[in-house]
Amino acid sequence: MSVNCDLQRERAAASLDSEDFALWWAGGASELAERRALEHRFYEDPELEESVHPSCLSYKERYEQTVARSTRFLAKLRQWQREKQPQLNLSVNLLRDFRLLLSGPLGTGLFQQSFPLRLHFSMFMTTLLSQGTEEQQAQWLNRAWHMDGVIGTYAQTELGHGTFVRGLETRADYDPERQEFVLNTPTQSSYKWWPGGLGNTANLIIVLAQLYVKGKHHGLQSFLVRIRDERTHEPLPGVDVGDIGPRMGGNGVNNGFLGLRDVRIPRNQMLMKNAQVLEDGTFVQGRPPLLLYGTMVYVRVITLRDVLFGLLQAATIATRYSVVRRQSPIEENQPEVSVLDHITQQAKILPQIARGVSYRLVADWLWRFYERVLQQLEANNPRNSLPELHALSCCLKAVATDEATEGVDRLRKSCGGHGYLSSANFDSIHGLTAAAYTYEGEYTVLLLQTARFLIRQYVDSLKRKVLPPSVSYLRDTARLVWSKSLSANCVRALEIAALEQVRQAWQTQSTHQRSKVSAQMASNLAGRQLTAAAVAHAHAFFTRNALEELERLRKTGLSKGVSSVLGELVELFVLDTFLRQSGSVLRWNSITGTQLRFVESRYEELLSQLRPNAVALVDGFDFHDRVLGSTLGCHDGRVYERLMAEARRNPLNQEPVNASFHSHLLPMMRGKL
Amino acid sequence: MSVNCDLQRERAAASLDSEDFALWWAGGASELAERRALEHRFYEDPELEESVHPSCLSYKERYEQTVARSTRFLAKLRQWQREKQPQLNLSVNLLRDFRLLLSGPLGTGLFQQSFPLRLHFSMFMTTLLSQGTEEQQAQWLNRAWHMDGVIGTYAQTELGHGTFVRGLETRADYDPERQEFVLNTPTQSSYKWWPGGLGNTANLIIVLAQLYVKGKHHGLQSFLVRIRDERTHEPLPGVDVGDIGPRMGGNGVNNGFLGLRDVRIPRNQMLMKNAQVLEDGTFVQGRPPLLLYGTMVYVRVITLRDVLFGLLQAATIATRYSVVRRQSPIEENQPEVSVLDHITQQAKILPQIARGVSYRLVADWLWRFYERVLQQLEANNPRNSLPELHALSCCLKAVATDEATEGVDRLRKSCGGHGYLSSANFDSIHGLTAAAYTYEGEYTVLLLQTARFLIRQYVDSLKRKVLPPSVSYLRDTARLVWSKSLSANCVRALEIAALEQVRQAWQTQSTHQRSKVSAQMASNLAGRQLTAAAVAHAHAFFTRNALEELERLRKTGLSKGVSSVLGELVELFVLDTFLRQSGSVLRWNSITGTQLRFVESRYEELLSQLRPNAVALVDGFDFHDRVLGSTLGCHDGRVYERLMAEARRNPLNQEPVNASFHSHLLPMMRGKL
Repeated sequence: MSVNCDLQRERAAASLDSEDFALWWAGGASELAERRALEHRFYEDPELEESVHPSCLSYKERYEQTVARSTRFLAKLRQWQREKQPQLNLSVNLLRDFRLLLSGPLGTGLFQQSFPLRLHFSMFMTTLLSQGTEEQQAQWLNRAWHMDGVIGTYAQTELGHGTFVRGLETRADYDPERQEFVLNTPTQSSYKWWPGGLGNTANLIIVLAQLYVKGKHHGLQSFLVRIRDERTHEPLPGVDVGDIGPRMGGNGVNNGFLGLRDVRIPRNQMLMKNAQVLEDGTFVQGRPPLLLYGTMVYVRVITLRDVLFGLLQAATIATRYSVVRRQSPIEENQPEVSVLDHITQQAKILPQIARGVSYRLVADWLWRFYERVLQQLEANNPRNSLPELHALSCCLKAVATDEATEGVDRLRKSCGGHGYLSSANFDSIHGLTAAAYTYEGEYTVLLLQTARFLIRQYVDSLKRKVLPPSVSYLRDTARLVWSKSLSANCVRALEIAALEQVRQAWQTQSTHQRSKVSAQMASNLAGRQLTAAAVAHAHAFFTRNALEELERLRKTGLSKGVSSVLGELVELFVLDTFLRQSGSVLRWNSITGTQLRFVESRYEELLSQLRPNAVALVDGFDFHDRVLGSTLGCHDGRVYERLMAEARRNPLNQEPVNASFHSHLLPMMRGKL
Repeated sequence: MSVNCDLQRERAAASLDSEDFALWWAGGASELAERRALEHRFYEDPELEESVHPSCLSYKERYEQTVARSTRFLAKLRQWQREKQPQLNLSVNLLRDFRLLLSGPLGTGLFQQSFPLRLHFSMFMTTLLSQGTEEQQAQWLNRAWHMDGVIGTYAQTELGHGTFVRGLETRADYDPERQEFVLNTPTQSSYKWWPGGLGNTANLIIVLAQLYVKGKHHGLQSFLVRIRDERTHEPLPGVDVGDIGPRMGGNGVNNGFLGLRDVRIPRNQMLMKNAQVLEDGTFVQGRPPLLLYGTMVYVRVITLRDVLFGLLQAATIATRYSVVRRQSPIEENQPEVSVLDHITQQAKILPQIARGVSYRLVADWLWRFYERVLQQLEANNPRNSLPELHALSCCLKAVATDEATEGVDRLRKSCGGHGYLSSANFDSIHGLTAAAYTYEGEYTVLLLQTARFLIRQYVDSLKRKVLPPSVSYLRDTARLVWSKSLSANCVRALEIAALEQVRQAWQTQSTHQRSKVSAQMASNLAGRQLTAAAVAHAHAFFTRNALEELERLRKTGLSKGVSSVLGELVELFVLDTFLRQSGSVLRWNSITGTQLRFVESRYEELLSQLRPNAVALVDGFDFHDRVLGSTLGCHDGRVYERLMAEARRNPLNQEPVNASFHSHLLPMMRGKL
């Protein structure tokens, strides 16, 4: 099969060497080679192929196909791991690696809408590791790793309770006589709802429930509950379990609901690393764990990577398609041009690439920051940076998810009608990205958490205290001085806007408090200002940090090609953020029309500089065709052939005449209905 | 079944009488009564019910169920129409009424993702009417109306050609010897692609193709082509037809592809009202039709209604759910409050209601304007307002679709995780709204058309010519004078921003032209400014027109309750637009921080004024539960019961143990995979 000639031409004319970029992007030659070898091994395995596009299957068929394929995949992945590393040491890090294989590019290429066994490794086993005692780990961990009679998941969210975890209703009452816990979901709204794999797959799960001993409440604890018979898989007595149904995305996950009615478990199935219930019912509160919301922070840090991954998948598809697709001549009586030659199309696509790449720089920094904080905590450092990490991870996760989701949608729209087809795969990518808006901290709730931190820091700044680095700009009250560096001007203007937005939120809150409402109500009434402050902070941080990371990377030695294109991308990201936030920027800074026009013409200049390298750049992300999963985005650019081929595969097209013609259309045409 | 108590409380406390609002919204008592009677008749008909939620079906099953239900629906609708109006006069207006029944609330309630027979009435029959000669109409129209052996659709778009219609490749060559046209899709990219109902349903369609007579090209003409045998439904020789596959929305439409290879039709199957091919091949160009792009303009005018309908469906669901859903206390140690009590939630929902209602006012005005222009054209008035109507309909359709799609998504997100479920129905609503971004004129292409008009008008204004009313502000170069009326200030600021944006686009274009690129290339290079100008114009027009329409309506007599809530909604819409466009507004106006704070506090005051009437207001849109199609949005607010009930209906939940347990999970757990 030949490569589309427009794509060939683009590749030949690019100044960027995409293999050079790919090496940097993958983190080195061996990382790139290993990933490619893995992809080769799994993507060319005929036993892992899909005969029908999942979007054509019924929900039930999709579940069954996903279970079949994912069990095969897991078996093959274990085989690969045994070859690579015969001695296995079960640890948090191993689980993380496994999670990255399952949910990262490799797993995505096989399961565009994920699969039900993922939660077993990502949430069930990590919770066993972090909350189980040594004895509990000895009893369960090895079995869990080998899935020896155990398929797990983690059940927290309830039908009526998500964000406000303290409001969960599921309860576990300790029965000292039988030394058992009795679990109940006493109301409709207390049914567990959402856990992945819970519907029809998991048989032994961790349930978060309110602990009661002799009528006394001891907060939320985790319990290991068998819900399905190990051999027959039948739901056990008192267990009401099923799948919650189709969703915007992630339809392979088998998210489930669960009602419990007097389900009894032995005492040693409460996870007791941090708190214990003794045989007689005595409750012992242990030391709180080092990183109380450790998993949440970890997941938020990782989410930044996940959403930029989705954004760049979408950008790759849109870029290649926009070269192959020809539409409307620019000059009269000339042939139609590649859509990417229209400046309006460049403005839809290139800033998304710039955003994804800049997020990647920030995500790498954030990961290192996270590891630094873990070290501080392990060293019992009381002046650790956990509050700063927490505040940053909240607003960066929220804003990045929001921007990436909007970016994926913008890229989808840039592909016109074809972008709307499931075979283009934007809908799956959008669905997974959009889910991150809510999970592990809902957007607005996260922003309010960051805002509380910002307000505290702002009050500290008034007291002339030293502030953590990411918010030190809150002490800098100097006005914008327009310098020669447009990027620096933009970042500074975004910081001033953030500072002023924080100040305004604080003033609004204080004004309300003076009018005698409670502090909580005042904070509710200032909600719009508070969330705006957190968003402004995130934008200021993203741009500042991306520029700093670029400088740092350049010092570590980048190839000339990579350094140059990264420079253009980060600058475009900074200018784009500035222009998109111009409402807030102009409100809080004095910027002239001439200065704005400078920013705009530099912005357009960057578009035209990046344009010739657009294809080479997305080639450099080195997404395997299977990872993109798109008829529009394949490396060979044979868009129309693939659209037709996918349509022809549709089971609806396998018979020339559908049965409903005889049963309904013909009688209707004969007036017999 | 009782009504959720929080909803009851809201309804009891509202000052707005929702029935009063419903009367106005429906356009009068008889309109409201007729719609309700229709809904009663069709929605309570057990033969039209769905036993399984369509999102659980395979694509093929969904098609079959849709055909079965839609043929039943059509038969019943005809029956109703015969009862109502025994003497039928086939006309454009009747077809429009029929289209409104099929695609409006009634049809939406039955087919959330539409159905394949819709295009027969909306596009096939209207094209026969507008492009067929009298003889052709006599031959086909009656048969088409009764679907007597005829199921039609209209095929224009091709796999490789959409926006640039002149680029279509399908060709029809006249063979004078046999007096036939020979139709061909000579390339892969010329396959027809997208027409609704084409896949497996239609048998006689209208095909747009390049006409060639003796090798000479005579532009695009329409041809009536039989593609499937009337009795067997088998594709005819030379016809390659099928369904293009699943999409983000509208999955009931049976969009199809079509390849033609030497398919012959008799000469009288070219639609010859506007141009003829005589027996010997002589081509006769008739008078161009009055309204060359009439259908396009009509559809754009109607699209404004469609997208505000979707936006308000979503807003109704989100409002009711936000009252029922309780999350996070505001005051410490108090129960969790209705989410709608959080000001951040009000700011997500209420402005969308305001937007939908304001669009409705503008849509009504636009419809009257459309009818006025039709009259001008019929009277052969050379100074007709067609260019103004065209320019307005382009940018209003583009901007309203974009804002409504974003609004639906924002409302979905305001419902947290549950909004993500298909049973909440946001995904269907979003899919249908999002489709309008592309169909009947792609967003950016439409904006560029409006921009060309704006530039012409701006140049005219420099020559001191009189401008059409909707752009007369382009002549008003006075600066913003901040008055007591915040709405007036906001509209004026938006107009100034639009004017300046038009001026800047014109300057950019002129500058490029002076640097010796062609006018076309200059226009491409100014693309970002041109589209920004059209968007700014749309915002200025929407806000100005909504305020004017409100004034006019008040003069015609509105009840006090309706007048008051409309006043709040339109003002909120104007302020919201101003704040959302603040980047452009602040760039082109001098507005102080104090003035902005005034706008913001009035904005928040409006949120709190509207809050107590939120439920009564959405009740007043009088969407039937079937039209909302949502577990979260029903009138009785029994959200959790409905979520559970819908989950339990899922075919995957009908067996306690899925077959894949035995075939895959158990072997995996025993290490046998």
